[in-house]
Amino acid sequence: MNQNRKGLLLVVSGPAGVGKGTINNTLIERNSDIRMSVSATTRAPRPGEIDGVHYFFKTEAEFEKMIAEGAFLEYMRVFDLHYYGTPKSFVEQELSEGRSVILEIDVHGAMRVKAAYPDAVLIFIAPPSMSELKSRLIHRGTESSEVIERRFETAYQELEFVKQYDYVVVNDILDLAIARTEQIISAERCRVYRNGEMIEKLQGGRNAL
Amino acid sequence: MNQNRKGLLLVVSGPAGVGKGTINNTLIERNSDIRMSVSATTRAPRPGEIDGVHYFFKTEAEFEKMIAEGAFLEYMRVFDLHYYGTPKSFVEQELSEGRSVILEIDVHGAMRVKAAYPDAVLIFIAPPSMSELKSRLIHRGTESSEVIERRFETAYQELEFVKQYDYVVVNDILDLAIARTEQIISAERCRVYRNGEMIEKLQGGRNAL
Repeated sequence: MNQNRKGLLLVVSGPAGVGKGTINNTLIERNSDIRMSVSATTRAPRPGEIDGVHYFFKTEAEFEKMIAEGAFLEYMRVFDLHYYGTPKSFVEQELSEGRSVILEIDVHGAMRVKAAYPDAVLIFIAPPSMSELKSRLIHRGTESSEVIERRFETAYQELEFVKQYDYVVVNDILDLAIARTEQIISAERCRVYRNGEMIEKLQGGRNAL
Repeated sequence: MNQNRKGLLLVVSGPAGVGKGTINNTLIERNSDIRMSVSATTRAPRPGEIDGVHYFFKTEAEFEKMIAEGAFLEYMRVFDLHYYGTPKSFVEQELSEGRSVILEIDVHGAMRVKAAYPDAVLIFIAPPSMSELKSRLIHRGTESSEVIERRFETAYQELEFVKQYDYVVVNDILDLAIARTEQIISAERCRVYRNGEMIEKLQGGRNAL
């Protein structure tokens, strides 16, 4: 029998600026059996965003039809304005074919996924310190100082949810953080409760001899 | 903040012939922060066995004095004959200094350790198949066919306990099995419940700014 190679549903969260996008992109580049889930949204595409790559851009009517059809693994409406959701079909297709899927979603989405898929593995990417996080937010230079302050405030709110995650990976040195995340994925494949079939085959081996 | 580097209490079990000794020896050779616990026993040393290396050899009176003093992390008496036990002092000293300790003990010892130390990580090394296990037992050529039959029967009894372990590592290819065990150790250091202090420091960072 081989070690379980079934796909894992991985949720990766963390505050803006912590580097989770870089970690996830490296993971999918290095591992052909890991894919990124693409979210659906009703908000307008920003310059450079491609439909089906960054998001599936939907009208409100299309999105609500998908909700009615149970097509989302999780979804939410932000500030009574835009919908965001994780389409179920892509995720379930990939998992059934043995690939793992990363959902890069916020803490609220993570909690909804955990409730619906208790086998999901929740990983929170944490900064080495909050002052380092602020410095990264400032230095990436893509947001106004007002937006940075808001993201920074949100980071503290997100920390309240860390204890409901399975793992916390400190992104102190990027290569280490990537390695830790890969080690978590490998280790999770060895969890006893993911290898029930293999164990039963070993136990049944007595009759086969 | 750094990722948790506290020592882990690791229990590694598996049937005779599965290769757990080789895996454990490689782990401690490669990682200076992992140590093997040395068990105490009242049985006589076998040729080549060194006191303090393979076992701490004790008289029955010495062993029972240690029991009375609460000096064992776990112990048992086999067939109303010999005592075997894990001295607590070495394990606690190593853990307090940030090193991980491997206990290579049987399934019953593992259950006693888990009851006393719920944070212990239990890893079961499984053969790729039972016929492969039998073949390995025969080919190491150190036991009579009667002993091999008995060990093989015991292996089936041990499998009944696998579901109470945290991880199962298939020793199909030795290097892969070693890598999986190392990945488990690394991943466990990222478990949220082992990083409570780090998370609290991040949350407290608001005041520091």
